[in-house]
Amino acid sequence: MALIEPRTLKGFRDYLPAAAVPREELVATARRVYRSFGFLPIDTPALEYEEILTGKGGEESDKQLYRFEDPGGRKVALRFDLTVPLARFVAQHSHELGLPFKRYHIATVWRGENTQRGRYREFMQCDFDTIGSESIASDIETALVIHDLMRAIGFDDFTIHVNNRRVLTGLLERLDLADRSAPVLRALDKLPKIGPEKVTAEMSLVGVSATQAADILQLASITGSNDEMLAQLEPLVSANDRGRDGLAKLGTLLRSVRAAGVPEARIQLDVSIARGLDYYTGTVFETFLGALPGIGSVCSGGRYDDLASLYTKERLPGIGASLGLDRLLAAMEELKLLPERPAVAPLFLANFSESHLADYFALAARLRVHGIGVELYPETKKLGAQLKYADRRGFRWALVIGDDEWASNTGQLKELATGNSLTLPLLDKGGDAAGDASPELLHALAQ
Amino acid sequence: MALIEPRTLKGFRDYLPAAAVPREELVATARRVYRSFGFLPIDTPALEYEEILTGKGGEESDKQLYRFEDPGGRKVALRFDLTVPLARFVAQHSHELGLPFKRYHIATVWRGENTQRGRYREFMQCDFDTIGSESIASDIETALVIHDLMRAIGFDDFTIHVNNRRVLTGLLERLDLADRSAPVLRALDKLPKIGPEKVTAEMSLVGVSATQAADILQLASITGSNDEMLAQLEPLVSANDRGRDGLAKLGTLLRSVRAAGVPEARIQLDVSIARGLDYYTGTVFETFLGALPGIGSVCSGGRYDDLASLYTKERLPGIGASLGLDRLLAAMEELKLLPERPAVAPLFLANFSESHLADYFALAARLRVHGIGVELYPETKKLGAQLKYADRRGFRWALVIGDDEWASNTGQLKELATGNSLTLPLLDKGGDAAGDASPELLHALAQ
Repeated sequence: MALIEPRTLKGFRDYLPAAAVPREELVATARRVYRSFGFLPIDTPALEYEEILTGKGGEESDKQLYRFEDPGGRKVALRFDLTVPLARFVAQHSHELGLPFKRYHIATVWRGENTQRGRYREFMQCDFDTIGSESIASDIETALVIHDLMRAIGFDDFTIHVNNRRVLTGLLERLDLADRSAPVLRALDKLPKIGPEKVTAEMSLVGVSATQAADILQLASITGSNDEMLAQLEPLVSANDRGRDGLAKLGTLLRSVRAAGVPEARIQLDVSIARGLDYYTGTVFETFLGALPGIGSVCSGGRYDDLASLYTKERLPGIGASLGLDRLLAAMEELKLLPERPAVAPLFLANFSESHLADYFALAARLRVHGIGVELYPETKKLGAQLKYADRRGFRWALVIGDDEWASNTGQLKELATGNSLTLPLLDKGGDAAGDASPELLHALAQ
Repeated sequence: MALIEPRTLKGFRDYLPAAAVPREELVATARRVYRSFGFLPIDTPALEYEEILTGKGGEESDKQLYRFEDPGGRKVALRFDLTVPLARFVAQHSHELGLPFKRYHIATVWRGENTQRGRYREFMQCDFDTIGSESIASDIETALVIHDLMRAIGFDDFTIHVNNRRVLTGLLERLDLADRSAPVLRALDKLPKIGPEKVTAEMSLVGVSATQAADILQLASITGSNDEMLAQLEPLVSANDRGRDGLAKLGTLLRSVRAAGVPEARIQLDVSIARGLDYYTGTVFETFLGALPGIGSVCSGGRYDDLASLYTKERLPGIGASLGLDRLLAAMEELKLLPERPAVAPLFLANFSESHLADYFALAARLRVHGIGVELYPETKKLGAQLKYADRRGFRWALVIGDDEWASNTGQLKELATGNSLTLPLLDKGGDAAGDASPELLHALAQ
């Protein structure tokens, strides 16, 4: 029979252990941080009725949908984000959930878009949101979650950029451009990439005059410390209620986040960020790595007025953000923060004796009780072959025990990176099989 | 605009926090146990070329496939298990991976089958496998992983049933029925459900005589302690090489697993289990809960001769098993082992003062440093409403601090289940905002 070529679809990838281990650890860290603020996990189906997913999201998302008819003739599609499923979920279950409702959701999404460098058609999203409160407390908390998350992942040098859409929309109202805020904000979002001239040109397409564009760009180009920027913004937006409110909220947010222990260098007012998505209405966040700002924001989000208006009459305001898991992993790889051969257990146990198989397993079981992961090589190959395997798998230690060593209740513990080795007793109580692992062995492995 | 009805597809379900929290914890436990034996995580795409998935699995699986044409006109399908993707994955990457290769894979699969009670069209699988070794050490290890997994989840009363397909196929060879082993084993697998008469009837359809069926059923009905059963099997299979080898392996497995510390009550020879799937060739496992045997096996697997023959000429023997996550969760719910309102953080922080928002957040941050999860209520509602929320979310403690309490650096810590409360200092160093949480508060929360 002809072989079937083993291959993945274009735009899809396998995760070998070298990539899967750090991704799993990143997810575990996110989960731990989200939980430490009281966010609860949820999950939703990968497949939804197509109408649920196309109701929102606009043309661009629609084109990216993996849609088909299921065996029962229903029009279904694979979710392309976790926000639309959240909206459907909260509309469907809000009475059972109770409000405010804080959830996180870490799951795979699919987009049939053209694949670019480092972009896949299947990727994991890692979202957290607070639904059902308009309090600034939730905005502050969102910034603190992003901060703790980045710290827990291991970053020191990063900056959370914060803006409030109301500052900008206040200015647009003053300029009589409120009806064109979506295209104006989309154009403004491109400022760092395409520069002021092209932004002005793009705005002129929706009838923004050169003078109006200059006012908008003046606001977007304010710099300085957070306090200096707040002071400079004051006269520009004070004539408009919405702008004044947005600015006051920005001030409260920045001061509270600082007071809660976040250093000034890690939270920064940035009037240039607007987040293209139309549904953000208040605070918006982007997060940049000091060592790799060019890769873009690794954690973004913001406040929205009404999450689920397509599915329910209940108004559901909220705020949330999403950790860019794959982008962050790519950054960590580029910054050499990931181990090349990530090991999931520290100790490799070489195998030299069929007749002592049960003894190897019993010793390994005793070490696991102490939280020490142990892998026993399944075959009695030569030491060189076994140690080569252990090295390839990134183990820190190898424990070598042959028939003679079993008889004398000793083993040789090697540190693979240095080649240093120690001869140590294996079991307590002079090798009694019912005994614990020896204190000497436990002590050495705890180093 | 008309609302879109928020609903999930038939056979699909949402996971609300009450279900998502225990599922996440079960997955974390499985991951921890797999890692402690050196199994490494991998992931593969949910979507594969249809030919990859239909190559193996037989008619029954084919009917269950969610298959469609992707936007690029490729014939694709959603994976229906994690074994076929593993075969494709190992065939594609074996040189990079190195053998033996031990992997776990915890991921969602989809089957468009008719939905029955408690069966969904989307569910999570939780597999571990060792590829590339025929050593009995891997069989022993598989049993030990299942044992540690069940213990780590919290079960004491369970039994791992073990058999070796070679014992049965050895007998079938002796009876000249080797060419019909697949249908005979499938029929035999139904013995506990349908009884010996119907099994005999089903076997007769493939030409098994009543005498032959009686011999097979005699072997399958052997009972007693593991040693007694091994002794009874001896004369039945000793005339056949394959059977003798299977029986010797069963003996080694049972003795080694016992010697490695597993009590006799938890590992049991069971000649009646054959596992319907044709690809098992050696050791097979099923795991039953003492308190709920009727729900069937919660962790099953076995040894196969060649995993990936459809995709590569390299022979890849292996052994593995799969934890029945959803079945186990259903069982834990039935046994009342799951909390009704699972909390992810122990402490609820009531919110009474807009002006002290930053202080609440700073105190919460200081408690999180000590590993204590804290949720701050986002709004300054009445205490009753806030405590009702805290109770609904299953928090153990609520900490109540108003303006006066902030001034005196004290708060009231309530245990929600008992109503007991304590007045405690909040911050060390007489309320210095730079200070740590007070030792009294940390001590109380550590109880």
